[in-house]
Amino acid sequence: MTDRGTPLYLEDLEVGRRFSSGAAEVDRDAVLDFAGQFDPQPFHLDEKLAKASVFRGLAASGWHTASLTMGLIVGSVPLAGGVVGLSVDVTWPAATRPGDVLRIDSEVLKIEPGKRTGVAVLRSLTRNQRDEIVQEMTARLLVRRRDETMR
Amino acid sequence: MTDRGTPLYLEDLEVGRRFSSGAAEVDRDAVLDFAGQFDPQPFHLDEKLAKASVFRGLAASGWHTASLTMGLIVGSVPLAGGVVGLSVDVTWPAATRPGDVLRIDSEVLKIEPGKRTGVAVLRSLTRNQRDEIVQEMTARLLVRRRDETMR
Repeated sequence: MTDRGTPLYLEDLEVGRRFSSGAAEVDRDAVLDFAGQFDPQPFHLDEKLAKASVFRGLAASGWHTASLTMGLIVGSVPLAGGVVGLSVDVTWPAATRPGDVLRIDSEVLKIEPGKRTGVAVLRSLTRNQRDEIVQEMTARLLVRRRDETMR
Repeated sequence: MTDRGTPLYLEDLEVGRRFSSGAAEVDRDAVLDFAGQFDPQPFHLDEKLAKASVFRGLAASGWHTASLTMGLIVGSVPLAGGVVGLSVDVTWPAATRPGDVLRIDSEVLKIEPGKRTGVAVLRSLTRNQRDEIVQEMTARLLVRRRDETMR
């Protein structure tokens, strides 16, 4: 766990460092609203049609899960200058359902120091209240160097 | 270009097939609203603070760009059973700005037939009104087989 008040620079990170987020409840209306705006497919919008689909019940858009994950990462990984993703790999091993409560565990997999900034590779697992993984993400994050900031 | 009225099964797809979307304007209030809900960082919320950030101006959350992209893909890639992503790789080579108009070009890179379903690998480039690529995504999509559906 991390003191959220202390922004972390590249020099402060080490491989294996972990961060745990708070919780986010997946509101049913929010699932429908997100899907209506961004991913208007029957299995994200209609209980009955969702039952007959590959999801076997109403499921949040994967992009909704990803967006909720981002909010929890922003709240739990206090990088100096913010959490700025260069690229991500995301898989969704299970569906997110209305009423689920999500939490994120993140771990630094790799650190690549650059000249003025660096890259930290962070793996973030999104789990529901039954400890099922609903999203696995590996992100390349741009991270500031303390020595460059001090100049 | 595709007749949106004809749902496509795995057997209907071939490597190299392309799909072009309509346009989505990135509304300024929507940028602020999305960031407030999912990615509450200064460079997504505050013009002045964004100017001093790595983005050098207000930028939409990458997850907002990804979500808008999904909506345009849903509208332009008429897969039978819907567009269901198993996993994605996403990079954001340039920022999405309020007022941008986004369009998506998608291309089938690979087809992996399975027993009851299959996987299509689709690359989708998201471009703004200046033809700059703001997102590159490669997605593994679950696609129905026509012969399995007919049984």
